[in-house]
Amino acid sequence: MKVNALPVRGTKDFLPNEAELRDFIQHKIAETYKQFGFQKIATPVMEDIERLNKSDGGENLAMIFKILKRGQKLDLSQENLSEDDLVDSGLRYDLTMPLSRYFANNRQFLNAPFKSIQIDRVFRAERPQKGRLREFYQCDIDIIGDASQQAEMELIAATTTALENIGFSDFTLRINDRRILIDMIKYAGFHDDDVMSVCITFDKLDKIGLEGVKAELLEKEYAPEIVQKFIEVIADAESEEAALDRAAEVCSDKTVVQKLRQVIDFARDFANTNFKVVYDKSLVRGMGYYTGIVFEIVSPKFGSSIAGGGRYDNMIGKFLGESVPAVGFSIGFERICSILIDEGFVPKRSDGVILVYNDTDDFAEVVDKAKEFQALGMRVNMIKRSKKLGKQIDALIEQAGYNYMYAMDGVDELKPIGRK
Amino acid sequence: MKVNALPVRGTKDFLPNEAELRDFIQHKIAETYKQFGFQKIATPVMEDIERLNKSDGGENLAMIFKILKRGQKLDLSQENLSEDDLVDSGLRYDLTMPLSRYFANNRQFLNAPFKSIQIDRVFRAERPQKGRLREFYQCDIDIIGDASQQAEMELIAATTTALENIGFSDFTLRINDRRILIDMIKYAGFHDDDVMSVCITFDKLDKIGLEGVKAELLEKEYAPEIVQKFIEVIADAESEEAALDRAAEVCSDKTVVQKLRQVIDFARDFANTNFKVVYDKSLVRGMGYYTGIVFEIVSPKFGSSIAGGGRYDNMIGKFLGESVPAVGFSIGFERICSILIDEGFVPKRSDGVILVYNDTDDFAEVVDKAKEFQALGMRVNMIKRSKKLGKQIDALIEQAGYNYMYAMDGVDELKPIGRK
Repeated sequence: MKVNALPVRGTKDFLPNEAELRDFIQHKIAETYKQFGFQKIATPVMEDIERLNKSDGGENLAMIFKILKRGQKLDLSQENLSEDDLVDSGLRYDLTMPLSRYFANNRQFLNAPFKSIQIDRVFRAERPQKGRLREFYQCDIDIIGDASQQAEMELIAATTTALENIGFSDFTLRINDRRILIDMIKYAGFHDDDVMSVCITFDKLDKIGLEGVKAELLEKEYAPEIVQKFIEVIADAESEEAALDRAAEVCSDKTVVQKLRQVIDFARDFANTNFKVVYDKSLVRGMGYYTGIVFEIVSPKFGSSIAGGGRYDNMIGKFLGESVPAVGFSIGFERICSILIDEGFVPKRSDGVILVYNDTDDFAEVVDKAKEFQALGMRVNMIKRSKKLGKQIDALIEQAGYNYMYAMDGVDELKPIGRK
Repeated sequence: MKVNALPVRGTKDFLPNEAELRDFIQHKIAETYKQFGFQKIATPVMEDIERLNKSDGGENLAMIFKILKRGQKLDLSQENLSEDDLVDSGLRYDLTMPLSRYFANNRQFLNAPFKSIQIDRVFRAERPQKGRLREFYQCDIDIIGDASQQAEMELIAATTTALENIGFSDFTLRINDRRILIDMIKYAGFHDDDVMSVCITFDKLDKIGLEGVKAELLEKEYAPEIVQKFIEVIADAESEEAALDRAAEVCSDKTVVQKLRQVIDFARDFANTNFKVVYDKSLVRGMGYYTGIVFEIVSPKFGSSIAGGGRYDNMIGKFLGESVPAVGFSIGFERICSILIDEGFVPKRSDGVILVYNDTDDFAEVVDKAKEFQALGMRVNMIKRSKKLGKQIDALIEQAGYNYMYAMDGVDELKPIGRK
């Protein structure tokens, strides 16, 4: 009997080289974040199904993997069973909802403001044909308990430094504040109830252009004079400065644009010539829970966003019953990994010795010799001499970067092998 | 509305200090294993439900978390629904079944023999009252494709070195070969079908003693003369040497005891005075899939096993349709962590600076200063001056080991703070 050995649809086995790269990137990012005073935490991948279903996950709520109830709780004899009768937990679709729950559950033990690192698995039942994984890693930092714009600045400094530390450069940081966009929509004359729908259309500005946005809004049967006024207010200004001036005119809360300017100025100062910073009036970011500044990082080389985040001041209150400000920045870990793999990036490895022994050797002596090399900081792979030795050595050089050989039965020396 | 913030029953939130310790131990163990030539891999936590249900998981099969089918595949309108109608995948209960599947799926890309490291999550719906977690980490190394006893020796060398590297010492390595026990059972006259039942009783030898084993076997209504013969063959011998001689007499395959002696001799030689090595004729190990040598490490200080493993030569064949020898050793990661936490173990941290700034400071200058300290290898936590500053500093010293302070508005110096 031979059993199908493929992983579950939409999931992936990681080969040693991929796993090595993933570990390396995770470690490098975590080390950078720790240098900025952030602390790693860990939460379960399982969450109560009710909590998941009631969370602000937008379209992710339709992609939750649900876990069957167990034992007596599972009653299949009822009539008209619904999913709710069958499940009591599910796999998390992001790390922000669990973080909010975690903060509410553990607040008394946490530093204030709380600066967290999460690098962990999440699950979404995406259509596998999209090429997206159903089980993947996210890599988030968040600051909880700081309502000031310095929190956004810290996240920007830490995240861009992390990207630079794993070899990314020449990216662009786009910044906006959702409240400006909302006020622009209202200023044009749209009804409060239409804000979401207009946002969704506006989010496509990059792809369909100003004319496309106008056409889609008219198609949605909004009044032409309202659509026209909106198009005028969002049309390109002469300069970023002029665009921000126009935003300030429209915005009901004058501090919104003032703080946004501060964040942009900081980011530009911090970036120096290493990356670009732009005010992007069309930046919305998908998640429904953002309440203020939003940002994303795009790499023109790869044409897509490699990090994103923003302020979500209302989410933790749901768990805590008390409003707590929060802001987060998430690196698209899987995208980063696939970019680096495509580029043939190999993490720096320690030297590796292939230690060849014979079946008749005293294995304690073999291991003693291995420990000698290990003490020098080398990896040691003990391989028994057989007809396959040549092939084994070639594979270790090729796939795992071994660069020395030592034979227990040879002359007593360590020989460099493999690629120059 | 306030939502319950507790994690799912049987799971746990890890506070920053716990997460830090867990990361440190995982990293240290992985580094040790890499030095022995092992390679980290990663597999999904989700597996096909059929594969899980048909695997050699023993009692773990009753503890699988099952995942609901999705979309059209889920038909709740049928009558007499069974669990099988509802689920198509589940969460893995160990890392050995996924490794076997992984090897079959990826063999052509892997070094031979394949020496793998897995440090990852598994899930078991244990009764939460046992104090066991339902979502926890395992930490395994395995050698696939090496039928010789040197593979066992490598695992013993690597695992005991890893334990020593995280500060464990004075432990005892117990070794046995399942085939000896099975031959002893048959030698006494038990029927082949009774082997499992006798093993289960014999596994309790440590707890109930020889008399207890005898009583339980008689209670199971085995013939008194068979039970008596079994008790005689398993009774304490004068010495380990004598016990192994007796094992050799009973064992049908003479190489079994010969190889076991070699492994014990190697382990004792390797251990030197660092840990103890014993032949333990009562060692069974729970998992049904072991086929040869089994081992476990116990720490007398904590009275329980902290690592265990053995040879399982039949498992990979199920997926590959071709028999491949395999042997693995698993460190009880959660037990190790709870022992180290109880002992108040704190991983070595880099120096930490609390960098105090004012709301009116130019934040770019604050971050520049932070980068100066980071360049010296220090962690830097930027904290805005407020009435809470004293409390914040105390907490950072206490909970995160910060040991320096620098104030942007102070005289220009880095001051040591906190505990001596």
